[in-house]
Amino acid sequence: MIELRKPYLLFIGDVAKVHSAKTAFGIRDWARDACLGQYRLTDSAVDIGLPDLDPRSAAASGAGSLVIGVAPVGGQIPAGWHAALIEAAHAGLDIVSGMHSLLADIAPLREAAEASGVRLVDVRVPPPDIPIATGRKRTGRRLLTVGTDCALGKKYTALALADALRRSGADVSFRATGQTGIIIAGSGIPMDAVVSDFIAGAAEALSPDAAADHWDVIEGQGAIYHPAFAGVTHGLIHGSQPDVIILCHEPGRDHFHSFPDFPVRSLRAVADACLDAARVTNASARLAAVSLNTSHLDDAACARALECASAELGVPAFDPLRTSMDDALASILGRADG
Amino acid sequence: MIELRKPYLLFIGDVAKVHSAKTAFGIRDWARDACLGQYRLTDSAVDIGLPDLDPRSAAASGAGSLVIGVAPVGGQIPAGWHAALIEAAHAGLDIVSGMHSLLADIAPLREAAEASGVRLVDVRVPPPDIPIATGRKRTGRRLLTVGTDCALGKKYTALALADALRRSGADVSFRATGQTGIIIAGSGIPMDAVVSDFIAGAAEALSPDAAADHWDVIEGQGAIYHPAFAGVTHGLIHGSQPDVIILCHEPGRDHFHSFPDFPVRSLRAVADACLDAARVTNASARLAAVSLNTSHLDDAACARALECASAELGVPAFDPLRTSMDDALASILGRADG
Repeated sequence: MIELRKPYLLFIGDVAKVHSAKTAFGIRDWARDACLGQYRLTDSAVDIGLPDLDPRSAAASGAGSLVIGVAPVGGQIPAGWHAALIEAAHAGLDIVSGMHSLLADIAPLREAAEASGVRLVDVRVPPPDIPIATGRKRTGRRLLTVGTDCALGKKYTALALADALRRSGADVSFRATGQTGIIIAGSGIPMDAVVSDFIAGAAEALSPDAAADHWDVIEGQGAIYHPAFAGVTHGLIHGSQPDVIILCHEPGRDHFHSFPDFPVRSLRAVADACLDAARVTNASARLAAVSLNTSHLDDAACARALECASAELGVPAFDPLRTSMDDALASILGRADG
Repeated sequence: MIELRKPYLLFIGDVAKVHSAKTAFGIRDWARDACLGQYRLTDSAVDIGLPDLDPRSAAASGAGSLVIGVAPVGGQIPAGWHAALIEAAHAGLDIVSGMHSLLADIAPLREAAEASGVRLVDVRVPPPDIPIATGRKRTGRRLLTVGTDCALGKKYTALALADALRRSGADVSFRATGQTGIIIAGSGIPMDAVVSDFIAGAAEALSPDAAADHWDVIEGQGAIYHPAFAGVTHGLIHGSQPDVIILCHEPGRDHFHSFPDFPVRSLRAVADACLDAARVTNASARLAAVSLNTSHLDDAACARALECASAELGVPAFDPLRTSMDDALASILGRADG
């Protein structure tokens, strides 16, 4: 499993577009305690509302890693950032990146990291030695978010449910499967980069045996009927052996994002297919709730959407960023306690 | 796509156990015209019934590649083979291996290959630049073998059906997805080694647009309810967008091989799950026949098994190594022609 050293200094560089800094905002929102400050190279760079710090002061305050929280178009690390990253390595910070180009391919940065004994961590690169899945039933409880499509709230639903379970007194680990999630959690495995024979094995390694009442809340990936990414979804479901699945959907998302010829299936069809897959490794897997991303709906439309989804599936519906999750929480804990 | 240079000199080395030479026997049986001879280092090595040739005479007879057709325990290339492989590279043959250790890691072999301009081809290593799947419907017809488990006849069923379709006058390509299949076909993609985000994309690249009446017969991988390898199966089904699937099974295989806690589902359940997945990218996908591996059954038991499978699924049943495939062929061609 990838393990990161917290707390973080979030690197904004010279990126001025708010949209390009959405990773930084996500980390700030979901791992606030782990963020010491932001490191901006120009005054026009996005301000995400954290104290401005340079690598040396951040290190002096106990920072463990500089995290690149922005994504320039193309996903490459601009040459203009190299000096700042090298400075951070010299200051004793691990450098953490989710970009397409690899940190270790920047020779002077590699040398600086070696000289100061820090790590260059590309969170897109899976850890070595992932085993083949065994299917062995593990101890502890597991919740997995699944979706009707990609990019509609599986990560934030998992984060919000992990928080809610924690507040209810449960012992909880958020298990990250994508790069932003890994940075937020400080550990995880980038499932979509794992060689396909090992997907289920990676999911097994991600949520190991735990105490009987411990909850792993696992970030879902892809979608079971997705024409490109269903393989990842299947392996993740099988290896996670979830006790509970939470179906995530965006009302009005009628077609897969970027795949206009592929209609999104009904909530019922997706839930049934996910349960069928989940029951391969956990016969008592059940759907506990449905999570809707209603950010584009007014209050009345949101209420209607929640009511419809709940009626279709017979489980509580919620929007993790908008409504109460009490009923969902009771449903998650309810029968699992019984 | 991996592309190999035929014909082959099959390297047996010093392997004396028949079971360890099963790749060589498979290549001999299914790509007989592509096999010029065998290259044995000792008289006690397995004799697969091809003319004994050394690399230089094989090259003089037109051989394109030396293919390692044996698998010592552990999958490593023994040091005792290096001189023979280097000799073959010097003779102008590509070296083809499906072993775990990589050919290019043997420095003197790498130098010999560079000096004589031949390739070192590890068929376990997928080609670079596999795209993300698009889901776009491609021209031509596609048949995919699927199975209730791994290792029960998906490759040989596909090979036998490709031959039968060819004999019936169809224009056919066998599309290989595993290492032995790739050597037999001379091209293909090792699906289980592809990064999971790209599985469906690899399957799309494997069977590109073709003439309307051309058949791609695609070797299946894994099994849709397999606790470790279902991700590969799903991606392969989605990317293959098969018009026809053939379900493969071994009567009596009640549990997944090496997974004794996981029962194999009914033929009907597996067929339905595969069709559900196939219809994501091809709404008219249908089950055309069921292929049984009956090698362990006597004639009466074989006949009963075929009858039961055919009755359960409502399609013709056959054993590609034992019975007529005429009804299966008619079923494959039948409605697809209509």
